[in-house]
Amino acid sequence: MNKEDFLKDGEQLVDLERSNLWLIQDPSRFRFGMDAVLLSAFAALRAGERCLDMGTGTGILPLLLSAKTEAAELVGLEIQPESAEMARRSVEMNGLGGRISVVEGDIRTASEQFGRSSFDSVVANPPYMIGGHGIVNPEDAKAIARHEVLCTFDDLVRETAAVLKPNGHFYLVHRPFRLAEIINTLYRYKLEPKRLRLVYPFADREPNMVLIDSVLGGRPRLTVEKPLIIWDAPGQYTEEVRELYGF
Amino acid sequence: MNKEDFLKDGEQLVDLERSNLWLIQDPSRFRFGMDAVLLSAFAALRAGERCLDMGTGTGILPLLLSAKTEAAELVGLEIQPESAEMARRSVEMNGLGGRISVVEGDIRTASEQFGRSSFDSVVANPPYMIGGHGIVNPEDAKAIARHEVLCTFDDLVRETAAVLKPNGHFYLVHRPFRLAEIINTLYRYKLEPKRLRLVYPFADREPNMVLIDSVLGGRPRLTVEKPLIIWDAPGQYTEEVRELYGF
Repeated sequence: MNKEDFLKDGEQLVDLERSNLWLIQDPSRFRFGMDAVLLSAFAALRAGERCLDMGTGTGILPLLLSAKTEAAELVGLEIQPESAEMARRSVEMNGLGGRISVVEGDIRTASEQFGRSSFDSVVANPPYMIGGHGIVNPEDAKAIARHEVLCTFDDLVRETAAVLKPNGHFYLVHRPFRLAEIINTLYRYKLEPKRLRLVYPFADREPNMVLIDSVLGGRPRLTVEKPLIIWDAPGQYTEEVRELYGF
Repeated sequence: MNKEDFLKDGEQLVDLERSNLWLIQDPSRFRFGMDAVLLSAFAALRAGERCLDMGTGTGILPLLLSAKTEAAELVGLEIQPESAEMARRSVEMNGLGGRISVVEGDIRTASEQFGRSSFDSVVANPPYMIGGHGIVNPEDAKAIARHEVLCTFDDLVRETAAVLKPNGHFYLVHRPFRLAEIINTLYRYKLEPKRLRLVYPFADREPNMVLIDSVLGGRPRLTVEKPLIIWDAPGQYTEEVRELYGF
C-alpha cells in the first residue's frame, strides 16, 4: 500500500523529517505546530516506559516520541472521533501499531478510563486560551485545540496526577502568560516543577512558549534551563532548532 | 563635612554611578551585589508613593530607588543594628534624610511595627539559601544576608502582603531554583505575579536570577519579559546592563 492510499479527501501528508515518519493532517481542521515538536524534544522519556498523551489530536506527539525516545508504549487519548481516526491511520501508515495506540475518550475522566497510577509519564500540548468565550462553533476542531472548550487546565492536571505512578513525569508545553497559574495548579496536585525552559522567538523578545517537566511527589528544586531561541534572523532557525527538527 | 568624615575604620566608599550617590560599606561584612542594582531598575515605583525595603542591609536599595524613581518615601527595615547604623550614615552623607529612613526591626513582625496596608510597594533582596544549615556564627552579617537564618521566605511574603495596600506591588529578586516555591507562596498570600524577568549571565547559560513584580489582589495574567543578559563576552557587559549601571 502506498502512503497516499491512507488519505481521505482534503487530507495531506506531512514529512516529519525524522525516521522517515509521515503524518496525515487536514489543513481545514488543525495543523500541528512548533509546540509539539519542541515538547517531543523536551520530554525525556526513558527506555521501556508507558506514556499517555492527553489530547493527542492527529497523533503528532506519539509519532515524534516513538522516533526520539525508547518508550515502549505510547497511548494517545483523543475526544474527537474524526481526529482519533485520522491519528490511527497515521500510526498504521507508519507501521507503529505495536508501540502506539489511539484511544477515544475524555481527559476529564482519564483516570477512570485507564486506572490510577497506570503511566510512567504524561505529555500534553493543551489548549492555551482560557474558556470558550467567542467560540461560534464548539464542534470546531481548531477551536477545541486552542480554547478550553472541553476541559480546563485544572481538569488536565488533576487527571494527569491521578494516572501517573509515583515519581512519574508530566511534560507540558503552554503559554508564559499563564505560568503562575500553571505552577500553582501543579503544586495543588503534588506535581513538583523540576525543569522549566522558556522559548523566545528572538533573543531580544518576550517568550511565547514554556516547557515544564514536573514530577509527582518530587522534591522541591527547579532548574530553569538556558533560553531556547527560535530564530537567528527572520526566516533563519537557530542551530538548536534546526537540530530539533532534524533538518 | 567631607564624605570621608562619615567613615569608620575598615569601611569604604562606593560610587553608585548615579546622581552622585555614594554608599558606605564594610567589605568584611557584606558587599552589595548586582541583584540590588537589577532590582532597583526593575521596580517601577510611581511618583509620590511610599515604599518599604524588607531587610535593607547597608541601604543600597533605598539609595538607588531615590535616584531612579520619584517615590516620596523610602523606608528600610533592618534587623542588624550595625547595618542599620551604617545605612543611616549613608543616607545622611547623601543628604537624603528627607526621603529615606532606616528603621531597626524584624521582618517577621513588620506588619505590627508599621501597621497593615501602610505601603504602596515593597522591595526585597532576601537571603537565597534555605535555612541556616552549616552556619557557624549566626551573628555573621554575610551569613544572615545569604541564608534564611532570621526569617523564612514565607515570613517575608506574609508580612509583605500584610503591609501592602490593595493593588500594591511587591518587587522581588531571587534565585530561579526556588521559582516554583516562590510563585506558590505569592499565590497563598494573594500576590498575583504580573511581570517576571529571568537574568542570564550569558545568552547560552541557565539564568541565575529572577525578578518578579506581583500585585496584591491583582488579576491573573503574567508577562514574562525578554531575557536580561549580563555579559556579551567575559568582562564585557551588554549594553542594557551598562545602561542600568549608569556607565
